[in-house]
Amino acid sequence: MSDPDFRTPEEAGRVSGTAEPPSGPPAAALAAAAAARLAELRLREPLTHSITNSVVTGFTANALLALGASPAMVDIAGEAGVFAGIADGVLLNLGTPAPEQRRAMREAVAGAARAGTPWVLDPVAVGALPVRTALAAELLAAGPAAVRGNASEILALAGRGGGGRGVDSADGPDAAREAALTLALAHDAVVAVSGPADLITDGASIVRVENGHPLLTRVTGGGCALGAVCAAFLGVRGDRPALEAVVAAHLVYGLAAERAAEGAAGPGSFAVRFIDALGALSPDEVSAGARLRVAAARTAGEGRA
Amino acid sequence: MSDPDFRTPEEAGRVSGTAEPPSGPPAAALAAAAAARLAELRLREPLTHSITNSVVTGFTANALLALGASPAMVDIAGEAGVFAGIADGVLLNLGTPAPEQRRAMREAVAGAARAGTPWVLDPVAVGALPVRTALAAELLAAGPAAVRGNASEILALAGRGGGGRGVDSADGPDAAREAALTLALAHDAVVAVSGPADLITDGASIVRVENGHPLLTRVTGGGCALGAVCAAFLGVRGDRPALEAVVAAHLVYGLAAERAAEGAAGPGSFAVRFIDALGALSPDEVSAGARLRVAAARTAGEGRA
Amino acid sequence: MSDPDFRTPEEAGRVSGTAEPPSGPPAAALAAAAAARLAELRLREPLTHSITNSVVTGFTANALLALGASPAMVDIAGEAGVFAGIADGVLLNLGTPAPEQRRAMREAVAGAARAGTPWVLDPVAVGALPVRTALAAELLAAGPAAVRGNASEILALAGRGGGGRGVDSADGPDAAREAALTLALAHDAVVAVSGPADLITDGASIVRVENGHPLLTRVTGGGCALGAVCAAFLGVRGDRPALEAVVAAHLVYGLAAERAAEGAAGPGSFAVRFIDALGALSPDEVSAGARLRVAAARTAGEGRA
Repeated sequence: MSDPDFRTPEEAGRVSGTAEPPSGPPAAALAAAAAARLAELRLREPLTHSITNSVVTGFTANALLALGASPAMVDIAGEAGVFAGIADGVLLNLGTPAPEQRRAMREAVAGAARAGTPWVLDPVAVGALPVRTALAAELLAAGPAAVRGNASEILALAGRGGGGRGVDSADGPDAAREAALTLALAHDAVVAVSGPADLITDGASIVRVENGHPLLTRVTGGGCALGAVCAAFLGVRGDRPALEAVVAAHLVYGLAAERAAEGAAGPGSFAVRFIDALGALSPDEVSAGARLRVAAARTAGEGRA
Repeated sequence: MSDPDFRTPEEAGRVSGTAEPPSGPPAAALAAAAAARLAELRLREPLTHSITNSVVTGFTANALLALGASPAMVDIAGEAGVFAGIADGVLLNLGTPAPEQRRAMREAVAGAARAGTPWVLDPVAVGALPVRTALAAELLAAGPAAVRGNASEILALAGRGGGGRGVDSADGPDAAREAALTLALAHDAVVAVSGPADLITDGASIVRVENGHPLLTRVTGGGCALGAVCAAFLGVRGDRPALEAVVAAHLVYGLAAERAAEGAAGPGSFAVRFIDALGALSPDEVSAGARLRVAAARTAGEGRA
Repeated sequence: MSDPDFRTPEEAGRVSGTAEPPSGPPAAALAAAAAARLAELRLREPLTHSITNSVVTGFTANALLALGASPAMVDIAGEAGVFAGIADGVLLNLGTPAPEQRRAMREAVAGAARAGTPWVLDPVAVGALPVRTALAAELLAAGPAAVRGNASEILALAGRGGGGRGVDSADGPDAAREAALTLALAHDAVVAVSGPADLITDGASIVRVENGHPLLTRVTGGGCALGAVCAAFLGVRGDRPALEAVVAAHLVYGLAAERAAEGAAGPGSFAVRFIDALGALSPDEVSAGARLRVAAARTAGEGRA
């Protein structure tokens, strides 16, 4: 790719100190920060509170455990708020939002707000489905540190698309770039759009994480567990700078997927190898393997990459 | 086996055009149709809406993804009906029918009826357990395209047995042959009875799928995910002829199990290899590996095979 | 370890018949009983009714199936009591105790009491979280045959600690030894405290199971499925002597973990190999591989091991 708005880590390294972008860190600095955060995560074992859909609970918990975080799923009223105050990071995933989970999510948001716990919103399949679409709007207004979804979900959350069966595979994350920027600025949140290359923005910078593997889309929870990993990374040092934490999550996740795909015979063995890889990936491999590109949002906003 | 009512694909091929059974396609034609449907499924990626039990959600979604379908689980009131209208096929599995799921299932049935979406009923453990037994009777009356269960479940659904701990392993699907025929004719549905050899009928023909492997019974969701695969195959071309779709599902599933069993060290590695195999199985392998036997129902009804 | 209160199987064998401890069986007898129970479990396939948390349902069922038990999860009101009366053993795990599950658990306890079905209480994360803490106290009073938890949970259940993020990894099961003895005597139950070496007591004897592997703590359900395996073993011969059954469960589980860890590349492949190992482990390997130590409770109570 030859998009002049974006620089590889190598390029960023070469120009380091000579021509910094007007906002945000260069790619090499983000990669180094991701490596350091991974090491720190394994020392601190952030307690990561996931209220997530019933399809991916096991995979999500195993991804967190393998990574080095401490997962817990407390998704009932009367407990979720208490636990969000104890936890280091929280994920709210709207995949199967039964009434009890909706109550628990509202408690968790309140508990997280009281304790200053950063939390992630994953607006699964918002748009066409009314209950979660209303819930997502309500939760978005409550101040997540980060939002993670695919392009159609981010577009729907920003009110620009119908969601579902939509834009994802055809257009990729770039189709949701403006929506992501708008959400990030309006809600002071990091917004991550998953796709062949993930697009992550805090409203000032746009980071693309080119690490990853298509087999992740053939494993249920491949996206949902990434939201939990974002919450874990946000839980390492709290939510500032949240951009670094969310980029670290995507980078580690994508690199583990690349490693897992080597020698996988299909999505079953890939999923097993992916969990192994999340545990085996070293900080050095993160900084060496990162394929990040960074641009200022205002520049990136001028045209399609 | 020397049951004169049934013909192997080879036999069916030999006699093709000379002595067709009075109803239904010959085995070789069903195998070829299954191969074609698999290819078509991978092109169309049918959106398969599963409302299923909490034990098998992840395995079911992974089986669908590996196969090439697009899984979604929308199991709350206020959304399930909407989604059943968008989906290509729907599964209702009664394994853990909590109140919210029961409401969602009723909505899904109504939404599927409005949109003409074919749906599958899997009456898990009906008979001894009162809530699901009443629910299964209600749903059966609402017009599923297919019903899938083991022998004791099909017997119980037909009012001929107490269900649970029953007939399955001892007698196998043949014990439920008359019950399956009765249900198929009364409800204009394809009825599939899982077992060492699956028995599938639309009331006119009886098809036996001899592909499969006992390790499937050692993996949770081994039966439940098959119900979802039936819904996916029904979603490829709608529900006519549903017999072809349900046979295709059982055939592909059984062949993937056979492939997975080679080299498996136990049920853990088998399950991983099974997901890989669902993705790797080619249409040619389906037509070449099929072990089907077909008979007219009135002949088959005359005596035990 | 040189704790004079405890004897290895070899030591127990050597002194057999000369200096039996004042209460309870020697280690070699427990190991032999575990081997015999494993063989019997595989013949009888005890129907094991698990009401457990939404994160570990699939792994739990797969562990039971691999072992040779027959799992079922009936967790709704109107059915759980009926099913607890049919089942051979019941697990109540408090990991995600939604209101419907709480109703189901109360029904299950009543049904189990009527039928004499032994049941296991796993008080996940009690202490800091109010709903489950109250529920655990209520269920404990209803007479479980066994209680299984980690040290912080057992301490919290005995009213001696706040639970959560607590004592487990730092202190290990010994920190909960007095709490376990108190609970066992007060409730006439076997109490098992999981850790690097599991501590199991019926109030008279204290058994330590030194088999196991740290990778079990990196797999979600690694502890929860053990509770279900305890219920399965209790279901083989009913709940007397429950100590033998619970020790057998821990021993088989720990040995399978040791076998699985050989050649595992991380927690993902370990989990797969663990399920395989539960199926492959032979009774002879159980008696040969056991690392048990047994002491009388009153002696053990005098000081720290």
